[in-house]
Parts: sequence; C-alpha cells; structure tokens
Amino acid sequence: MSVCEGKTFRYSNASIISYGSVAGSVESEGPFGDEFDEIIKDNKGSAQTWEQAEALFQQKALKHAMDKANLVPEKMDLVFAGDLLNQCIGSSCGLKDYYIPFFGIFGACSTFAEGLILAGAMVNAGYVDNAAAVTSSHYSSAERQFRFPLNYGGVRTPTAQWTATAAGAAIISASQKPPFIKAATVGKIEDMGITDANNMGAAMSGAAYDTISRHLKHMSSHPEDYDAIITGDLGEVGSNMLYELFKRDGISIEQHHKDCGLMIYDREKQDVHAGGSGCGCSASMMCGHFLKHVENGDLKRILYVATGALMSPTIVQQGESIPGVAHAVEITYK
Amino acid sequence: MSVCEGKTFRYSNASIISYGSVAGSVESEGPFGDEFDEIIKDNKGSAQTWEQAEALFQQKALKHAMDKANLVPEKMDLVFAGDLLNQCIGSSCGLKDYYIPFFGIFGACSTFAEGLILAGAMVNAGYVDNAAAVTSSHYSSAERQFRFPLNYGGVRTPTAQWTATAAGAAIISASQKPPFIKAATVGKIEDMGITDANNMGAAMSGAAYDTISRHLKHMSSHPEDYDAIITGDLGEVGSNMLYELFKRDGISIEQHHKDCGLMIYDREKQDVHAGGSGCGCSASMMCGHFLKHVENGDLKRILYVATGALMSPTIVQQGESIPGVAHAVEITYK
Repeated sequence: MSVCEGKTFRYSNASIISYGSVAGSVESEGPFGDEFDEIIKDNKGSAQTWEQAEALFQQKALKHAMDKANLVPEKMDLVFAGDLLNQCIGSSCGLKDYYIPFFGIFGACSTFAEGLILAGAMVNAGYVDNAAAVTSSHYSSAERQFRFPLNYGGVRTPTAQWTATAAGAAIISASQKPPFIKAATVGKIEDMGITDANNMGAAMSGAAYDTISRHLKHMSSHPEDYDAIITGDLGEVGSNMLYELFKRDGISIEQHHKDCGLMIYDREKQDVHAGGSGCGCSASMMCGHFLKHVENGDLKRILYVATGALMSPTIVQQGESIPGVAHAVEITYK
Repeated sequence: MSVCEGKTFRYSNASIISYGSVAGSVESEGPFGDEFDEIIKDNKGSAQTWEQAEALFQQKALKHAMDKANLVPEKMDLVFAGDLLNQCIGSSCGLKDYYIPFFGIFGACSTFAEGLILAGAMVNAGYVDNAAAVTSSHYSSAERQFRFPLNYGGVRTPTAQWTATAAGAAIISASQKPPFIKAATVGKIEDMGITDANNMGAAMSGAAYDTISRHLKHMSSHPEDYDAIITGDLGEVGSNMLYELFKRDGISIEQHHKDCGLMIYDREKQDVHAGGSGCGCSASMMCGHFLKHVENGDLKRILYVATGALMSPTIVQQGESIPGVAHAVEITYK
C-alpha cells in the first residue's frame, strides 16, 4: 500500500439536484426493482445490438435526470460519462445526440464516483452552472467483451459477479436542496496481484481500503459517523477482504458497511454468485435508492466509495495482474 | 452541428511548470526527433509486450516531468491519464507504481487536452497544489487493437494515419512562470457519419470546427490573434476538411493552423500516409516542442485543440459511424 496521502477535496456549493436510473430485467426482479425510474424488460429496448442497448440506457438515465430538473440538453453545461465498453462507446453513442460538452472518464466500476467528484468540483468552483455524471453497464455487452459470448454457455465461478444491466445519471448544481456533495477523496491504483478475471472483488478491496482510510483520516471521522459507507461492487469476496484489511488497523466497519453489489440482487433467489458489479450497479443503486434517502433526510451522512477493477482481457491473457481503484464521495443531508 | 454553446473556462492561476516527452524510433527520425526528452529506439525498452511498452512510455514521460520540477510521486496530488488501449491500461499499468491519486480519462486522441483542462481546473480552483496530465499511444499496440496484427502485413489506405509511438506528460501548478493555461473549451461529440476506420481525420474535423468556433466566439478572438492554432492529429484529410468548414463562415484559418499529425513525421521521406495520430502524437509534440516555445516567449498565444475519433472496432463492425470530439486549451506566455 501507498504512503502518498493525496488531498480530500471540500465542497460548499454542490448539490445533486436530480438523478435518474434505468435498469434491466434481472435488476427489476431484485429487492430494489420498484425504485428505478424505468425498467427495460427485454434489456434491449429499441436497440439492435447490446452495445447500442447500453447506450440507450445511458441516454434514458440522463433524460430522466434532466426531466426531473426541468433541464433540456441545451441548458446543460458539461457531462462526465464513461462505461466498461472499449472506448466507452456506451457513453459516446448514448449521449452524442444531446450535444452537451463531454468529458469521457474511465475508472471501470468506480466511474460514477469519479463523475460525481469532477462534476461537483467544476460546479463548486464556478466553472459551470451545472454538470452531470452518467454511467452504465450491461450484462450482455460486458460478458462478450470481458469473458465469453453468452452463446458459449460458460459455467461461472463462485467468485464471479453479475454485471448489472443498468445506468445512473446525476446532475449537480449550486442549490440549497440536499443531497450535498461535501467532500471527496480520489483513489490511487492499488494492485493486489490478482490475476483471476473472475475475482474482481478481491482486486478492488485494497483500493477501497486505502481510499476509505485516507478519507476518514483527512475528515477526522470514524465509520460510526456515517449512516452508511457504501462500496460499489466488492461483492461477497471483496467485502470480506475489506473487513479483514480494516481489522488489522483495529477498525470494524462491518456494521456501517453496505455494498451495492450485495444489495441489487436477491442472492437467495437470483443466481448471481458473488453479487452484482459493473458501473451501472452502484450508479443505479445511488440514483434509484440511496440519494432519495439522503434527500428526504433518512440518511444524514453517507460515504459512497465506488470501486473499479481496471481489468483488461489483453493484460490478463498476458499474465498481468488486475489493478484496482476506488473513489470516495461524502454526501450529506445538511 | 449543435446549437448548445457550453462554457469557456477561464484560468488565472494555472501554469504548466514542467513537461516531459518520450518517443519511439519512427518519431526519432522525424523533424522533431531531437526535441523529445528520451528516445526508445526499439519501441519496447525493458517491456515484454507492446502494451507494457506503452505503459513504460507513460511512466517515463511523467518521470521526466517530475524530475524537471524536482517533484517526487509522494508530492504529486493528482494525475489525469488515459490512452487508446482498451480499459486505458497504458495509464493504469504505467502509472500504478507511483501511487498518485488517479483519474482515468478517455477522449481518444483528445485525451491530452482533456487532461490539461481538468488538471488546470483543479489547480486553478485550489483543490490541489499540483496535477499532471499524461497520455500515450503506441503504433504496435494500436494497430493490433484497432486494425490488424502487424504480422498480417495489411496494406494501409491513403487516408490512414500512423499512430505515434510516444508519450507526453505535463504538470500544472500555481506559478508565475509561463506557459500559462488561460482558457479552455470542452468539446461536444460530433458525428460526421464516417464509417471508415481508416479515415479518422474526417471523423474528427467537425468536432474541431465546432470547438474552435465556440472558443473564438467566447473569447472574442480571431485566428490571427493566435501565433498558432494547433490541432492534434487531423492529418491531411481532416485538415483540409477543417479549412472547408471554416470557409463556409468566411473564416480562413490555414495561415494560423498547424497540425501535430502533419508535423511529427517527414511525410516526404517517411511512409506515414495522411500523417501521425494517437494520443501520444500531439502530447509529445506539445511537451517536446510547442510548450518550450511558449515558455521562452517565441510563441505568445496558442490554441491547442486535441482531436479524438471515438472509434471502437465493435461499433465499426456493427456498421455504426465514428463520433469525434475536440477540446481546446488556450496557452499563453503572459
């Protein structure tokens, strides 16, 4: 692990004024199926390919967020977007018809937190009046690209996670309405030496530990100060590794920890192995569920830590290990 | 083209305090071969694969920049990095050993401008004391990923561009020393309907036109106010299309325009078809050549417009067109 401290950014003027979520079939059957703004039951909608379907999910998620804020694309100043697909085509194809100034970002499943941090920073500093963070993932496009074509019918390992078919979008602006982005800590790349492309949770746990540790230190806060510390998609394997890492420091975070990957599906009834994953997993859980509860005050202070396994089939085939990264965003009611 | 205006950001406190460049064999034989900080003659160095070679180029480019500024990784606050490889592994593998807080960005060949804009914005707003922008490209890793394995020996079309084997890194901080980042305009995704993966220049020209037009309008400036308007890698085809697009507005930019893709190689002697391309092309030309001339006052005001074709082999094979994006950064001596 690293000695570099980095900085924790503070925000005084960044509110998440609206958010939208779109989810697919398997997600609609999970415990939060009713909370998403839109369900696309066939996972494809009007699209002809899985990649275009993923793009459609992003387009719709941002549309829901814009509609709720009474914003049209011409009134949007900036969008940060990215996804898991090579060259982030879910974002570029999904958002191109809006003609909003566009910054592509890549952090694998940490992308939504990266987007919130940067969109919040640009608004808070006054560069723009509003900025959006958008991301997505799609089970079918991800399996084809990262593992095997679905038609191959490969058996999945117990450590494998199920890439969520979902998208989330949030719009940040200066406003007095919660949820507020209050602070953020940018992750460093941490390589745990994991070479198994079916064990993403383990590859990300070290990065999550490092980022959460630095955030708590810089904020002089403790796990019990948060209503929830929400990781993106460590899944069962990665969550347990996170607990072990914190135990070495004498810190217990289990009671305060939630993982979107463990929440989005009903693991008793749905065959998703170690849990959900994909940029869209935590983005849709934030935009479908958690942000509502910060907005209405049920949750006063949360730490959202999206975790990304920077996994490339190319380097996995070349025998390299999979680096991880995690970015933390502190979101509050007041 | 779009009606959305976007914002042009202004900076008062962002200086490019140092910059480093690394280039490969073909680039070393071009007209600027002597200006790069380091040449890796076999394009591979100590790496075992082309992907790891590209990562090495990024690692070295940032090392050169840090060394010149007397900075060590522990003193770096933030790095924005990306490249053309799937999942941006040139960046994640190349920079992971530095343990610097890391934001992955993706804008294809527009990546270096995106990095400068964001690194400059974070420094200028006081979130961090320093931030780096790093990017790379590599002929051999790019050809394999985007077109054909080199061993296949495919014949290249006249519109094809040569992906530069090069990397560039710049560190931004608050300083009174030029070059200064003064203003920036974020590009929108513009789709010219190009479906030919060997005609990137055409795919990017519309985006370059839109971004330059908006930047000039917002700054109340004209092409003749700049010592150079430097596009990333439009190449011959894209540059000519850019001139045509501006001619419709009665604006002639030819006399003030330079294109890194047309400069980096000696096209009389080197068989590079329509010119150079790749994130590393304009990044190395900026960090090897242009920034020096702004630093010493030869160039007083330049507009650097990195252009990216958001090309994905997947969507090209599916018959989709290739969207383009271009980001503009105004860099000045005073």
